[in-house]
Amino acid sequence: MSKVEIIDLKENVLQENDTAAENTRKRLKEEKTFLLNLMSAPGSGKTTTLVSVINELKNDLNIGIMEADIDSDVDALTIAGTGVRSIQLHTGGMCHLDAGMTNQGLDAIGTEDLDLVVLENVGNLVCPAEFDTGSVKNAMILSVPEGDDKPLKYPLMFQVADVVIINKIDVLPYFDFDMDKVKENIHMRHPGIEIFPICAKTGEGVPELADWLRREVKNWCE
Amino acid sequence: MSKVEIIDLKENVLQENDTAAENTRKRLKEEKTFLLNLMSAPGSGKTTTLVSVINELKNDLNIGIMEADIDSDVDALTIAGTGVRSIQLHTGGMCHLDAGMTNQGLDAIGTEDLDLVVLENVGNLVCPAEFDTGSVKNAMILSVPEGDDKPLKYPLMFQVADVVIINKIDVLPYFDFDMDKVKENIHMRHPGIEIFPICAKTGEGVPELADWLRREVKNWCE
Repeated sequence: MSKVEIIDLKENVLQENDTAAENTRKRLKEEKTFLLNLMSAPGSGKTTTLVSVINELKNDLNIGIMEADIDSDVDALTIAGTGVRSIQLHTGGMCHLDAGMTNQGLDAIGTEDLDLVVLENVGNLVCPAEFDTGSVKNAMILSVPEGDDKPLKYPLMFQVADVVIINKIDVLPYFDFDMDKVKENIHMRHPGIEIFPICAKTGEGVPELADWLRREVKNWCE
Repeated sequence: MSKVEIIDLKENVLQENDTAAENTRKRLKEEKTFLLNLMSAPGSGKTTTLVSVINELKNDLNIGIMEADIDSDVDALTIAGTGVRSIQLHTGGMCHLDAGMTNQGLDAIGTEDLDLVVLENVGNLVCPAEFDTGSVKNAMILSVPEGDDKPLKYPLMFQVADVVIINKIDVLPYFDFDMDKVKENIHMRHPGIEIFPICAKTGEGVPELADWLRREVKNWCE
């Protein structure tokens, strides 16, 4: 038997998605719970980033994490190691989460006593960008090994993001990745968006990212 | 004006996809043209791998490359630099290619005089695995920075692949990536599948991969 709770999700019909997302945000506002939707390509370091941010925030905020994956529970097990509440959402092959699926997750984790819930979306730079999950803010991670041209190829993801995290900056010397160029490409897709270069593994840049999230939670919950 | 030809694709209705894919394979068999569908997550090095393989094969085979992307033509421009025929396919926001879209690409590139056509699919480990493009074989790339746990999270991609390429082995010292573990995970999803560890940038392992492709093309075209 798995050591973490696993929820099998059912997809909402698409036309109801925007309404469902708005309803989720109303509910979260009433409950004073902030929901962050965290998106990236596979292997960009969503879970490692979450662990490092949780460790910065867990003494100040009640945190819950919903780990979405097509299969496996490896990420929820990793998050469980931080001591915060975590559940694994199984999407049944789906490439993204919609508002209805996210809501099933929120019901399962129980949000009343939580200040911050993070949804770790399916690793995918395309489909998750098309569905409003009901989150208060969207964050996306681009990791250095993926290359500085990704905003050119996956425009919508950078447009719907409220903040971009550039992870794995410790390996910058080993990749052809131009930090100025990537910022220019990101701002071409989304003028003025805030960008946090970090290394989730060493912790570099993580306090600044955690401060951003702490401010956002405070603004929402006041 | 762009320096490469750009084709805007229209999606086939889903139920026709399998029939269309079979028809594509029949056409390719008659024309003695081998079609490889190359899939991976964003930034795994599909284009760089293609360039290194093209340089191994272009004196022996007539090659055409179809670069699929949601937007941009950066990859087709890179491929054009090798001297082989290349076109850019724009998916109009779609997260994958189906058989009908692939067929539009084959018509546009002109396959009669080509021995090998490679379709570089949209960077995505989920949706492209669900659609038969009409390819003769499917190859997928997993790059070292993405992590050795990806076969656990994206099972279908590893099941539909006929060969797995592990790219960016030059950065193995900088990542927690266990080569034995990843092979075990891949073979759990797809027993016996052939695995080629390579570094597309330095060329390590590329001749072995090119030899595999040369053999597959020869078997198909005889």
